[in-house]
Amino acid sequence: MLQPPPARPGMREDEVDTPALLIDLDAFEANLDTMAGLLADTGVKLRAHAKTHKSPVIAHLQMARGAVGQCVQKVAEAEALAWGGVPDILVSNEVVGAAKLARLAALARITRIAVCADDAAQVRAIESAAAEAGTRLAVLVEIDIGAGRCGVPPGPDAVALAKMIADSRHLTFGGLQAYQGSAQHKRTPAERQALIAAAVEGTRRTVEQLRQQGLECPIVGGGGTGTFALEAGSGVYTEIQAGSYVFMDADYARNLDAAGAPVATFRHALFVLSTVMSAPRPGIAVLDAGLKALAVDSGLPLVWQRPEITYAGASDEHGKLTFAPDRTAPKLGEKLRLVPGHCDPTVDRYDWYVGIRGGRVECLWPIAAKGGMS
Amino acid sequence: MLQPPPARPGMREDEVDTPALLIDLDAFEANLDTMAGLLADTGVKLRAHAKTHKSPVIAHLQMARGAVGQCVQKVAEAEALAWGGVPDILVSNEVVGAAKLARLAALARITRIAVCADDAAQVRAIESAAAEAGTRLAVLVEIDIGAGRCGVPPGPDAVALAKMIADSRHLTFGGLQAYQGSAQHKRTPAERQALIAAAVEGTRRTVEQLRQQGLECPIVGGGGTGTFALEAGSGVYTEIQAGSYVFMDADYARNLDAAGAPVATFRHALFVLSTVMSAPRPGIAVLDAGLKALAVDSGLPLVWQRPEITYAGASDEHGKLTFAPDRTAPKLGEKLRLVPGHCDPTVDRYDWYVGIRGGRVECLWPIAAKGGMS
Repeated sequence: MLQPPPARPGMREDEVDTPALLIDLDAFEANLDTMAGLLADTGVKLRAHAKTHKSPVIAHLQMARGAVGQCVQKVAEAEALAWGGVPDILVSNEVVGAAKLARLAALARITRIAVCADDAAQVRAIESAAAEAGTRLAVLVEIDIGAGRCGVPPGPDAVALAKMIADSRHLTFGGLQAYQGSAQHKRTPAERQALIAAAVEGTRRTVEQLRQQGLECPIVGGGGTGTFALEAGSGVYTEIQAGSYVFMDADYARNLDAAGAPVATFRHALFVLSTVMSAPRPGIAVLDAGLKALAVDSGLPLVWQRPEITYAGASDEHGKLTFAPDRTAPKLGEKLRLVPGHCDPTVDRYDWYVGIRGGRVECLWPIAAKGGMS
Repeated sequence: MLQPPPARPGMREDEVDTPALLIDLDAFEANLDTMAGLLADTGVKLRAHAKTHKSPVIAHLQMARGAVGQCVQKVAEAEALAWGGVPDILVSNEVVGAAKLARLAALARITRIAVCADDAAQVRAIESAAAEAGTRLAVLVEIDIGAGRCGVPPGPDAVALAKMIADSRHLTFGGLQAYQGSAQHKRTPAERQALIAAAVEGTRRTVEQLRQQGLECPIVGGGGTGTFALEAGSGVYTEIQAGSYVFMDADYARNLDAAGAPVATFRHALFVLSTVMSAPRPGIAVLDAGLKALAVDSGLPLVWQRPEITYAGASDEHGKLTFAPDRTAPKLGEKLRLVPGHCDPTVDRYDWYVGIRGGRVECLWPIAAKGGMS
């Protein structure tokens, strides 16, 4: 069942029921503008990743600032965006199974849709689904340029798969999916540069080999929040797939710049609002947001603008705070903002964004693709 | 939006769309029967914890085997159970904030409801909510018997709070909430016994001091899947609050018995069914279930009955498998069962249980309290 919205427009932030997922609208819009500005003169387009925000509302705000479309990872996410009017969607991932491919092929009637493949059997399955639906699908070849996850090796294997796609009656060769995920959270610029240099080299070589076979790449896509400037400056990539930049999370904020300072290109715009639900003895305070309200895979959340308080441990429904005993202790009923360790899987726990500006609730947006795993 | 069910009754397991949350119905029913059997002669009742299963269907199956009611942690969970016909619900947790208390007090019109408190201001707030709604609420005093989370200290502080509850016009003193959460996952019986012995001592002392003041405890509740036999045999506890026993998870299965072997009282009954979505090169296979499909706070999932395969890493939508190169590699499109590291927050990602018996889908049950954080 959809959870009821935790707020109404016009409420003060401290009236919002908790746990709630807040967007600081000023910071969020600044992030959208910053990314648009950084890419404006590169000739490289943004195809923002909706796996972070899962919202057609945010997709449209990104596209109003120049994004050419959206990436998603799952068919259910593609459906939520297509049903919300997003006109150009790339599933930057493999989709396996006839039931899922039938849903994808059906979507091609209402939106422009592309998907990735890294296996000949998969190309045949996508062709069958498109033929059955009477639609056309664009298919990108995913290449593994260092992450060691999905994707064929750059070079001849990728070219062979691209030819097979181009020769399929209901498919169009869509280009290359070349995302180096393992570079995004490397802490130093030197580590990120080295990994992306290798990724760019493999991608460039594959693009050239494809061209020699008469195959042009409409899309060469990749790049995340940690490295997009490198891909954008490579001369090879045509589209950037950053997602987390809209919100930032505690983990991305640990990436460093050349001077050894945290990269500060984007601002924290996403918060979990939480209430102190127990403070029974000096030195103990417990929040109402634990493992079910926050993803902790990339570390525990930070308490926003309260450096004296540490979110020290999460259980299913509780978060335990520690703090110096000589400081003002969090009080029973007090509401605190938390910066999630990892934004994508945290967003996926909530049904609603609560947009905040100037201390008041400005808007509620449904997280339309929440829980869309299939 | 509610996700569509990933299966239909009658389907073979390998036809179920993925990721999906499976219940092995034989193992699940055996777990229900085992717990009922273990408590049958103790005089101690089961008030099973619905924070694990979040389903009125499962609540009724537990109550049909003798459970006196259900525990929940959140008002939204209490609502989902009450609306599903569960007649006796204890919120084994503090509920803070007028909006939540108003919802709780309203529920008392359709079900028997109790809640915990560990602060005098909270007792006043619950009294106000009950008075406003024209209902009565039972309030238990939560005591901290070693977990260092919520709860007043055992002894005089608890007695003072109990008196205040008993003297409140719209409240009834409901007894003691005495759960030692930090003992549940201690690996050796000696560690668990030592922690529960201390918990029982503090609880017994508080019950006696209450009695001296003329206050009897209708409920003395606590005990989880890791320690319930100790609380049940204490002579002090009247109700056991185990939840995870219905499903078991990989983490609980690491608890050891006196012989140093894994405790095998309950069977793994909960699985995430996942598909190999990419297997592009020898030695690499990737599943379609990652951080958004599985809670990893208590460790990565195990691959069921395939000890040669390791789920080695999770990203947002992918799970990376490693396996000995000389063994049969997982094939593209193959479906594998995973045992979640931690069942409660994994269940909370799904809209549907898919009940399996004899290799076929027997039933679909909605996870009615999914995402109910408020």
